[in-house]
Amino acid sequence: MKLWQKATTDTNSKAIADKIERFTVGRDREMDLYLAPFDVLGNLAHATMLESINLLTSDELSVLQEELKTIYQQIQAGQFVIEEGVEDVHSQVELMLTRKLGDVGKKIHSGRSRNDQVLVDLKLFTRDRLWQVAEAVQRVFDRLIIRSEQHKADLLPGYTHLQIAMPSSFGLWFGAYAEALSDDMLTLQTAYRLANRNPLGSGAGYGSSFPLNRTLTTELLGFEGMHVNVVYAQMSRGKTEQTALTALAAVAATLSRMAMDICLYNSQNFGFLTLPDALTTGSSIMPHKKNPDVAELLRAKTNRLKALPMEVTLVMSNLPSGYHRDMQILKEILMPAFEELLDCLQITDFMLEHLQVKTNLLDDPKYDPLFSVERVNELVLQGVPFREAYLQVKAEVEDGSYTASRELRHTHEGSIGNLGNDQIVKQMTTALQGFGAENVQKALHQLVGTQP
Amino acid sequence: MKLWQKATTDTNSKAIADKIERFTVGRDREMDLYLAPFDVLGNLAHATMLESINLLTSDELSVLQEELKTIYQQIQAGQFVIEEGVEDVHSQVELMLTRKLGDVGKKIHSGRSRNDQVLVDLKLFTRDRLWQVAEAVQRVFDRLIIRSEQHKADLLPGYTHLQIAMPSSFGLWFGAYAEALSDDMLTLQTAYRLANRNPLGSGAGYGSSFPLNRTLTTELLGFEGMHVNVVYAQMSRGKTEQTALTALAAVAATLSRMAMDICLYNSQNFGFLTLPDALTTGSSIMPHKKNPDVAELLRAKTNRLKALPMEVTLVMSNLPSGYHRDMQILKEILMPAFEELLDCLQITDFMLEHLQVKTNLLDDPKYDPLFSVERVNELVLQGVPFREAYLQVKAEVEDGSYTASRELRHTHEGSIGNLGNDQIVKQMTTALQGFGAENVQKALHQLVGTQP
Amino acid sequence: MKLWQKATTDTNSKAIADKIERFTVGRDREMDLYLAPFDVLGNLAHATMLESINLLTSDELSVLQEELKTIYQQIQAGQFVIEEGVEDVHSQVELMLTRKLGDVGKKIHSGRSRNDQVLVDLKLFTRDRLWQVAEAVQRVFDRLIIRSEQHKADLLPGYTHLQIAMPSSFGLWFGAYAEALSDDMLTLQTAYRLANRNPLGSGAGYGSSFPLNRTLTTELLGFEGMHVNVVYAQMSRGKTEQTALTALAAVAATLSRMAMDICLYNSQNFGFLTLPDALTTGSSIMPHKKNPDVAELLRAKTNRLKALPMEVTLVMSNLPSGYHRDMQILKEILMPAFEELLDCLQITDFMLEHLQVKTNLLDDPKYDPLFSVERVNELVLQGVPFREAYLQVKAEVEDGSYTASRELRHTHEGSIGNLGNDQIVKQMTTALQGFGAENVQKALHQLVGTQP
Amino acid sequence: MKLWQKATTDTNSKAIADKIERFTVGRDREMDLYLAPFDVLGNLAHATMLESINLLTSDELSVLQEELKTIYQQIQAGQFVIEEGVEDVHSQVELMLTRKLGDVGKKIHSGRSRNDQVLVDLKLFTRDRLWQVAEAVQRVFDRLIIRSEQHKADLLPGYTHLQIAMPSSFGLWFGAYAEALSDDMLTLQTAYRLANRNPLGSGAGYGSSFPLNRTLTTELLGFEGMHVNVVYAQMSRGKTEQTALTALAAVAATLSRMAMDICLYNSQNFGFLTLPDALTTGSSIMPHKKNPDVAELLRAKTNRLKALPMEVTLVMSNLPSGYHRDMQILKEILMPAFEELLDCLQITDFMLEHLQVKTNLLDDPKYDPLFSVERVNELVLQGVPFREAYLQVKAEVEDGSYTASRELRHTHEGSIGNLGNDQIVKQMTTALQGFGAENVQKALHQLVGTQP
Repeated sequence: MKLWQKATTDTNSKAIADKIERFTVGRDREMDLYLAPFDVLGNLAHATMLESINLLTSDELSVLQEELKTIYQQIQAGQFVIEEGVEDVHSQVELMLTRKLGDVGKKIHSGRSRNDQVLVDLKLFTRDRLWQVAEAVQRVFDRLIIRSEQHKADLLPGYTHLQIAMPSSFGLWFGAYAEALSDDMLTLQTAYRLANRNPLGSGAGYGSSFPLNRTLTTELLGFEGMHVNVVYAQMSRGKTEQTALTALAAVAATLSRMAMDICLYNSQNFGFLTLPDALTTGSSIMPHKKNPDVAELLRAKTNRLKALPMEVTLVMSNLPSGYHRDMQILKEILMPAFEELLDCLQITDFMLEHLQVKTNLLDDPKYDPLFSVERVNELVLQGVPFREAYLQVKAEVEDGSYTASRELRHTHEGSIGNLGNDQIVKQMTTALQGFGAENVQKALHQLVGTQP
Repeated sequence: MKLWQKATTDTNSKAIADKIERFTVGRDREMDLYLAPFDVLGNLAHATMLESINLLTSDELSVLQEELKTIYQQIQAGQFVIEEGVEDVHSQVELMLTRKLGDVGKKIHSGRSRNDQVLVDLKLFTRDRLWQVAEAVQRVFDRLIIRSEQHKADLLPGYTHLQIAMPSSFGLWFGAYAEALSDDMLTLQTAYRLANRNPLGSGAGYGSSFPLNRTLTTELLGFEGMHVNVVYAQMSRGKTEQTALTALAAVAATLSRMAMDICLYNSQNFGFLTLPDALTTGSSIMPHKKNPDVAELLRAKTNRLKALPMEVTLVMSNLPSGYHRDMQILKEILMPAFEELLDCLQITDFMLEHLQVKTNLLDDPKYDPLFSVERVNELVLQGVPFREAYLQVKAEVEDGSYTASRELRHTHEGSIGNLGNDQIVKQMTTALQGFGAENVQKALHQLVGTQP
Repeated sequence: MKLWQKATTDTNSKAIADKIERFTVGRDREMDLYLAPFDVLGNLAHATMLESINLLTSDELSVLQEELKTIYQQIQAGQFVIEEGVEDVHSQVELMLTRKLGDVGKKIHSGRSRNDQVLVDLKLFTRDRLWQVAEAVQRVFDRLIIRSEQHKADLLPGYTHLQIAMPSSFGLWFGAYAEALSDDMLTLQTAYRLANRNPLGSGAGYGSSFPLNRTLTTELLGFEGMHVNVVYAQMSRGKTEQTALTALAAVAATLSRMAMDICLYNSQNFGFLTLPDALTTGSSIMPHKKNPDVAELLRAKTNRLKALPMEVTLVMSNLPSGYHRDMQILKEILMPAFEELLDCLQITDFMLEHLQVKTNLLDDPKYDPLFSVERVNELVLQGVPFREAYLQVKAEVEDGSYTASRELRHTHEGSIGNLGNDQIVKQMTTALQGFGAENVQKALHQLVGTQP
Repeated sequence: MKLWQKATTDTNSKAIADKIERFTVGRDREMDLYLAPFDVLGNLAHATMLESINLLTSDELSVLQEELKTIYQQIQAGQFVIEEGVEDVHSQVELMLTRKLGDVGKKIHSGRSRNDQVLVDLKLFTRDRLWQVAEAVQRVFDRLIIRSEQHKADLLPGYTHLQIAMPSSFGLWFGAYAEALSDDMLTLQTAYRLANRNPLGSGAGYGSSFPLNRTLTTELLGFEGMHVNVVYAQMSRGKTEQTALTALAAVAATLSRMAMDICLYNSQNFGFLTLPDALTTGSSIMPHKKNPDVAELLRAKTNRLKALPMEVTLVMSNLPSGYHRDMQILKEILMPAFEELLDCLQITDFMLEHLQVKTNLLDDPKYDPLFSVERVNELVLQGVPFREAYLQVKAEVEDGSYTASRELRHTHEGSIGNLGNDQIVKQMTTALQGFGAENVQKALHQLVGTQP
């Protein structure tokens, strides 16, 4: 029975009660498993702070710390479960503490509400997963840079309007997606920084009459700062999820576009690249097929991820300030999204490692017109004004006298002959350093007493 | 091993293969369980048709029918599982047939592609669930009409701009949501009709060189008509899901708005209604709280449902015509949405049954201004032009001389004194009849040999 | 000065007042021009009804009718303007009446609120424009059927997964989009029916103490029925716009997919069709380019239209029942959307009329594998079980011994050899008849005294 | 006639040509006016760079610079128009140059495509407007901090679940929205940084064979860095708009939530604040009304803004890499959004300046339960374990023996007694400094030769 639960005389309503229970709990028990380690971290910091303001004795703190670290190790070892009949992860941890420590286990709830307890867990979880995503993005980035360098001499038709336009290269193509990810990293960094704020001490959104030391818990949990205003701390729920999902959506958009290119380039009508067998499937009725299912699913999954910020918006829109139970649903939107994107990033890395690039594509005379701008520029360098040169080459194309000179002299920064991948790598490195993830790791190791 | 699977010499890539397998299968096995009965129905119709064009003998048909009906009964009894290593529901049914019947089991795949097999299953599933939703909507509708009649004399402040405006009643308030559902029923009906079209025979989207009799399978499966053009039959994927989810979103929007009203009216600052204990929860730190969590979760879940049509849009946008594996993801969007909305409708029904309405609300002098329009109209009926009467009452309100006469004479159709619930019930009945669900039931009973 | 406006002593705040005025009026004056004829229709019906319940004399009604019909003709002739300083279309019409008729012009406001006046105008406008869209959709549909019949012998590679799959034809391709539009017509019909309900008499959402005859205005304005419950009548705002925009989005989705196909098929790597010069543009630097800009803009504009239902959702989400000024913004979302889609439909019609189809596409040996299923089916008809036939042809494809037999025998309903366009036309005709637009036209002609 | 335009022999198609012209131009001429000053800036930088690589003589550069600065001043003075028959702002500027300078005006097009010209204009525009938004946000922030300090002693009921929960204050309420804006500033900063990258030199997305010096134009235009990879530079279109609109949506979400609070608090059932007459309107039928229309429209407009990132997503989804004309539509989504949000911010500032706060709200006995947690905490400080104290107060509340002690002792960081506004101001200041806007201003002043 929950703390707040009223005795009910309505004895024949077990079925209804069960249905309502299922409706309100929803996927919460499943979602809460994600939060387990972070709940312990929050408890450790809160207990330490309570001792500092004399709401726990130092002996009480010691036994709580010891027990919490034990639970933390159980979680890390995969041995933690939310028992049947226990409402959520927070109750489970509390139950484990009180089973072992009796009343001391209960005292940890002083100066805290379920609301700020959940909030701090969510912040810690989100911060953790955003960093995992950042690291996975970097792995894909590294792969793209490797492939870009490897194929800088392999030319590719460049398209505008899906019409063949000017020469491009696989060096440029791979490098473009690498640079896209370096920009996405800035969006991830912002989401990380919004998650890296301490809401603990905000209670149910209106603070506490206990003389809490919020600066202390901020430091113990490695937060960059705190959500100062307690009403805002609560209001940050929704915004944190929104910003995190927006960052995931930015990465997803980059991946989905790449997947579209791959599906198109893999079509017989383009034939620019080949996917390994592991990434293609056949057809149940067409014996000749080799379908890029994995790339298609990557596209679909990442496209779907792009809808998630709107789900949060819809749940939160026009809710007045203050906590509403609606916010529980945000967990179901946020948490699986990280798993989905991390899977997508891993598959992308594998795909990028193994896809084979066709060489000498531009030898096909179909691609001759790609070089018409080169011809125009050649005339310009010979002194013909650009507009006249353009019209002359246009006439040559139309009367068939145009011949493609396949010599390329692209030398400026970021062009076929000068990819500038070192600059792109530098952008990425700077973006990653901006997270300040090292300080976070250090603080958490200290809190649970482990070695970094 | 799947039919189309190529032998691979890459022996040390088990881990990768597993990862890719999980990525491509996704939640498909879970989703496919929803499809099991419909796959059997599709098989029954297809087999019957194959016999009619001599691709099966009548003996072969007989054994197939018998076995399929057995599988159908297993499914209905909850005994059907997709075995380990079996890709999907379609393969599982085929496996069960071939295990029992050998080569005859295989012959059922003639003249059919996996694509149109999945499509017909999805159509049958969607049609079925839309009808379940329609029935659940009708139950909530009936409840609303009952409560509307019960409380037609219980007045309520009517608001515009969240400002108290004119007298309303719980009769009107309950009735309004009933009528909203009767309009939503039209949207559900359209979705039902788009789902009630036979795609079988369209193969992979380009038909078959077998002389299929598509009219026959259309009749056997109780479809209202067929997707004639085979390219369009395939293209209807995405559109069917979109239309179904749009209809669910329409119902969800009605429920979420009602939930918002309930949360607001349950606030101490309104105090218009009381929720039963089963639908409220307390607070872990505030001993006086009685929170409307169930109404809030209803609001959140229905608001989230409103995002789903956009998810389908995002997955499908700018895909050229023809099947893409992306469409598999639509199942994960569509299928759980039905369960979610059906749960929400059941909870709504329970909430509407049990919420208690406060009476004599308008006795509070705070609500006096509600009757100012009555005063204006009174003057108008005495011959004062409307604009002058308005200004006179406005002056009375401002100088404090205005007194509210609480006598109400609203008699026109749809007003407090004449709710018109019978007309609304008629609208609902007509909308439901438009589905043509009876014919569907009859056809399916005939196909599986059960009694209606 | 507006009726409700309070005298203000704050004399030095002209600039602020102007800014607030602009903020609140927004694009309302522009939007309101769309409503002008419908406001007159609403006035005509309301006045007629007022006379029937003795709130106007029959003489007063006569002069009002005459003057309103004059204003209607001015609107039709494009001579109507909302004068400087007049708040909206409703005030302008009222001003014109009172200028001419004095107090009689004012009496028309009895028994009506600005809210239900706006609502009825919006319903009439939306109903009108949905019918215009339906007619434009039918024109594109007719064009598609013509082109489908014209090119039923022109084969096209059919794709699944963007991989060449099986033979298709331009007959199928054009016909598929025609059938898609016939399904979209059902969605349009539902939107039309939700717009075809009379909200007049609902006042500000709580009805009136006058004995209004709502059945009479329902008949006069040609509505199929009324929004009975006055609270619901007001609540239908938002739902009407949402449903209308959802229907426009369904049509837009069909057009955007077709535009994607056209852009792709126009690429040199497909080369399936040619666009007329009027629909292509060149490049400022690439003299060889012929870009399908019009198809691309069609794709972009229709894709953007698909977002509009979500805009309405966002504005309306979690607003409690009762009118809120927020709803004014819905006009800016809804009204231009009709113009945009009507433009897109006209351009689509022109494009479909003029695009040229390439013939004999499948002679290219690249497309040989398209016929592999034919080979499998041939073996099946010779008695080889499907699965064995499949494996045999697969082996032929892999060892190079497979040769494509280009003979096609697709004869079933909806296939290359039997397009079934007559059935599709019948579906479209039935869908259009379901609107009941004729009755509407007849009623409106009678109301304004014009010949149908 | 445009450069690329082909002569057409189709003489009787003027009407069609006009229609297509309108369809393709769309609102481009209107949108392009926003770009005018930025096009001149881009031209100045490009010309300077061309001279540095000897594609212009230093004399040619001088006359170009002089003329461009003249045009810039005309734009600043509001004297710039896009002439009838001129396609866009870029052509207009080029026309003005060639009119004055003849062939020299044409030479400026060397080494540049229309694509990177538009791109750099868009980047400069977006960067400029994001900074304007940042400044407007800061003004609202400052106002909130002032009001927060002013009303730190004015208590307000704090709600959770819309149920009265614990004491809050207007100091907290105003301060919460201030802190929300300081977090939104981080999102704005990221958008600013993505806009602050130079795409010039990327041509049509495949670079140029001229030896362009992209570092030079990056410095001249005050960009923080460049989009290195030329394919990515083009791909950043869509991402730039998306990120900018996401940042606007974040600010909009904060404003819309505040507007919802204001509408609710202004309801007679809350009665927490009063809006000045300038911000309310009356009703055409209810003489007692004082409606918060401005707050409602603020809510609606900001809610609508939240949909815009999805519009960009829908236009861009599943487009392969490379330029597509679809991207033109993004201008219509992005550009008016800035004006809308800037208007909303100005109105918000005015509203916050003028709204009057009710005092002594908590004297109403209805709010007694707000203090029940205080009572629990009091018992805890007396040594009663939290859970027992909770149950004891709960029993007091239920048996009516509970009395509220209105003494508040909230002293921790961010609570009623210790708002921490100085910390919040510091967060805001740091966020603003992170833009690096000063360097940008300095570079631009140098480029056009004006004083900062």
